Amino acid sequence: MKVIIIGGVAAGPKVGSRVHRICPEAEVILIEKGEFLSYAGCGLPYYVSGVVQDQKELMSTPIGVVRDPVFFRNVKNVNVLNRTEAKQVDRTHKQLTIKDLQAGTESKLSYDKLVFATGATPIIPPIKGRQLKNVFTLQNIEDSESIKAALSEGKAKDVIIIGGGLIGIEMTEALISKGCRVTIIEKLPQILPMLDWEMAYQVKEYLELKGIKVKTSTTLTEIKGTDKVDSVVTDQGEMSCDFVIMSIGVRPNVSLAQDCGLEIGSTGGIRVNTAMQTSDPDIFAAGDCVESTNLITGKPCFVPMGSTANKQGRVAANNLCGRKDVFSGVLGSTVCKIFDFNIGRTGLGETQARQEGYNTDIILSPAPDKAHFYPGAKPIMMKLVIDRETRRLLGLQVVGMGVVDKRTDVAATAITAKMTIDDIANLDLCYAPPYSPAMDNIITAANISRNKLDGLFEAITPMQVKEKIDHGDDFIFLDVRSPGEYATVQIAETTLIPLGKLREECQQLPKDKEIIAFCKISLRGYEAALILQEKGFKNVKVMDGGVLMWPYALIKK
Amino acid sequence: MKVIIIGGVAAGPKVGSRVHRICPEAEVILIEKGEFLSYAGCGLPYYVSGVVQDQKELMSTPIGVVRDPVFFRNVKNVNVLNRTEAKQVDRTHKQLTIKDLQAGTESKLSYDKLVFATGATPIIPPIKGRQLKNVFTLQNIEDSESIKAALSEGKAKDVIIIGGGLIGIEMTEALISKGCRVTIIEKLPQILPMLDWEMAYQVKEYLELKGIKVKTSTTLTEIKGTDKVDSVVTDQGEMSCDFVIMSIGVRPNVSLAQDCGLEIGSTGGIRVNTAMQTSDPDIFAAGDCVESTNLITGKPCFVPMGSTANKQGRVAANNLCGRKDVFSGVLGSTVCKIFDFNIGRTGLGETQARQEGYNTDIILSPAPDKAHFYPGAKPIMMKLVIDRETRRLLGLQVVGMGVVDKRTDVAATAITAKMTIDDIANLDLCYAPPYSPAMDNIITAANISRNKLDGLFEAITPMQVKEKIDHGDDFIFLDVRSPGEYATVQIAETTLIPLGKLREECQQLPKDKEIIAFCKISLRGYEAALILQEKGFKNVKVMDGGVLMWPYALIKK
Repeated sequence: MKVIIIGGVAAGPKVGSRVHRICPEAEVILIEKGEFLSYAGCGLPYYVSGVVQDQKELMSTPIGVVRDPVFFRNVKNVNVLNRTEAKQVDRTHKQLTIKDLQAGTESKLSYDKLVFATGATPIIPPIKGRQLKNVFTLQNIEDSESIKAALSEGKAKDVIIIGGGLIGIEMTEALISKGCRVTIIEKLPQILPMLDWEMAYQVKEYLELKGIKVKTSTTLTEIKGTDKVDSVVTDQGEMSCDFVIMSIGVRPNVSLAQDCGLEIGSTGGIRVNTAMQTSDPDIFAAGDCVESTNLITGKPCFVPMGSTANKQGRVAANNLCGRKDVFSGVLGSTVCKIFDFNIGRTGLGETQARQEGYNTDIILSPAPDKAHFYPGAKPIMMKLVIDRETRRLLGLQVVGMGVVDKRTDVAATAITAKMTIDDIANLDLCYAPPYSPAMDNIITAANISRNKLDGLFEAITPMQVKEKIDHGDDFIFLDVRSPGEYATVQIAETTLIPLGKLREECQQLPKDKEIIAFCKISLRGYEAALILQEKGFKNVKVMDGGVLMWPYALIKK
Repeated sequence: MKVIIIGGVAAGPKVGSRVHRICPEAEVILIEKGEFLSYAGCGLPYYVSGVVQDQKELMSTPIGVVRDPVFFRNVKNVNVLNRTEAKQVDRTHKQLTIKDLQAGTESKLSYDKLVFATGATPIIPPIKGRQLKNVFTLQNIEDSESIKAALSEGKAKDVIIIGGGLIGIEMTEALISKGCRVTIIEKLPQILPMLDWEMAYQVKEYLELKGIKVKTSTTLTEIKGTDKVDSVVTDQGEMSCDFVIMSIGVRPNVSLAQDCGLEIGSTGGIRVNTAMQTSDPDIFAAGDCVESTNLITGKPCFVPMGSTANKQGRVAANNLCGRKDVFSGVLGSTVCKIFDFNIGRTGLGETQARQEGYNTDIILSPAPDKAHFYPGAKPIMMKLVIDRETRRLLGLQVVGMGVVDKRTDVAATAITAKMTIDDIANLDLCYAPPYSPAMDNIITAANISRNKLDGLFEAITPMQVKEKIDHGDDFIFLDVRSPGEYATVQIAETTLIPLGKLREECQQLPKDKEIIAFCKISLRGYEAALILQEKGFKNVKVMDGGVLMWPYALIKK
């Protein structure tokens, strides 16, 4: 059996290694357009920042052997043709035309099975000035070397990052740590569109605290300069800069697949079945060039991830060697960090869940990530998205200085297993003070959600409260924190009655008015609502997430 | 409704708060023998070490309010009688006799619902000298104050810890950090009996590296001294010391329950149903005094944990207020640390799985906890316990300097959902280099397990290899690491052929002999086995876990 793989970064090498492992008699040829193989694309921002010092570390095995063509030949029995471009697929004769990019010569290879692992390419909008010097994308080793070279010329630079997604955020950290001044320009009203906006707001607040400028709802229209970039022009004005990083997103590389008539999905990726097989049964595809399936909705989605590429590569190899294997789909699980602020998400966001027609409920729950008395415990702000009908968890988003990846992974596992909030509330997660609160954050959030669905209290989101304020509604906005907390930070136009005094002092509140109670995290807000209900107040709500998750301006003293 | 709760540490206050929340009209009385309420028992070792500086932090809410009787009265509407002992339950008349420990007076309280949250008590073996000064247990605030007071007298001390379980390990860290010299004495052949022995071996190695003496298979027979302890006598000899910490384990406090005729389970805890109801429908129980159910086997178990106590307390409160709720059981999920070494486990251990009759398979898989090129990535050593028949994950154990709690929690969630290794291998866990490898450790371990069950390679455990060596079996013990790695550390009597040279040099190996291949983690060992099979070698095995998880002496240079 002769297997040809097009693409040598993530999914391609995985397919090659795996085919060799299960069909050692197969002849495997791997075609790669660039020079470098099997490098950790997700590590590039850390190479730019210098956190990863040597280029070679990104393409080495854990014990430091560089994964070059010799390595693939000796260890994996995979023939690598790098600096070689796949030009055309003749599916009828099962032939691939390739071009040696150094010699410039073309030749043909026959195959029994062909694998597309052609990856994705950064999107560059077709605007004037995009080809100027010092306008970068970050896709491969060469890009990172160009950015590093430019950074090493002279001192701190003004950098504009176009696109506040994952790569934009990771590059912000890299460039700030190299002494640059960074402005992020994002066309949408929020950065990090995989988060709901009030969660993205928390990230934006942190970025601004670190001196990073964030300009949302701002569209790039032109890049100006003579040979190198001097400024960018947006619909909100012009800004001078030394560098531009384009991180709008990526587009799957499907032109070769399209040219030979393979089916392309609605999201633009190559369409595959759960065996990672394309519309041609002898052609498989894996990694950033394919369309995935959302595990919850069953609908197509395009979520390019190095982790997914590896899993899909394994499944593709198994199936093309005749071992049945299935890749069912993804949850869009994502994690990233900027300095000591962590961002995690999995499953459906609130907006997405509503669009899909779920009877959607949400919970906002901030809490320390460890036992609150353990030094180094740091707050994390969690959002759960729940289906009221089935009580199933649909999604989790969590941001903050504390540990978020653990909760994201537990949620991803629970969502895959179709767990309800009742199942999650009693999970036997491991506990010791240096690792989590006695009730882990996700368990507490699940319990809040159960209380709400079971009618124990009426919740209101900060966004709904803001709407009431903006409409001039008449209600008591009741802060039940301590006077000391109130003195430090507060929401405008609130009434303070500390929880411990509420039993005696609640008679000063009017019984006919709506009361919305909250505290720092809204646990005391919940206790307050229970006390008020007990005292005969009929119209009491608790504001989700408290002061910590209020996604609007605060009065700080 | 009048609810009386006996016990004021973890489950008791939870029941009280929850009852107040869902039945605000209920009268709730909480009886506590000691002075202090609602303190974090799991935080005591960190208070002894000084990591937690103020006693009050252990009994405060996250915003620093001390949970004393006034707090419970004002906020939770719970009447607390502390320094009060519950003496007798008259189930016929639904009355509880209590004794005020300060005044010495007895009185009777009637109840509609009674809750046992009586906790557990450290086991002290009935040996001579156990009552001597400076022989401590660590159960409550008073114990920790006694230890701190004794530590503050004079300089570094020789401490002997009796019992190498969780508390023993946590106290070791606390005492070493206070400048003590620590010896752990354990009756069993290994410390940390919730781990399989080869995993416990890794912990022991680390402890010894830190200068801690670990004496397993050693039984305490006497404690000697005049007024205070001078030495301990064991079946392996006598050792002088300044302090003794007794941390053999705990026993559920059930005498009151037993006296009033409640059913006691086979493990010694109060028997409850999934509603946390005892054999008397008006009496509930929760926390360290109850017997739990193992979620996998369905059999009774006794696993006292602060996290479980909180969950059970909530379920008990819901049910006693007439809201149906279920606590199904536990997995024995545990995490602890000693300095920068982390230990996690959940589900069944190998020994337990075999005892239960599962067709048990195991995988040992060491790997970095983050992308291997990311600075700060640290190795973790993972063991999976699998049921060959259903391919279900039964248990996970993971130890090392890297992050273990995340993998333990993902496993606990997956085991609860009855996931197979095939399900786990394609979980969409979140990935970025600072958080995990592209294929998380648990996914890699699941894939190794699949390879093994699918017959892709034949594995042998280090324990089986050691048996072969001890029996003088004739086989080639093939190390395929690099010469540099080999020069630093090696297993005795091995043959070195680096993986990259195996294709050319394998002809020097005899084809009729059994070959057992390994490397640092046994990934290259696996590649080696595939190459050898391809070259016509018929009897090739891969040793699980490689050098990193070899649980015997190594030659270090």
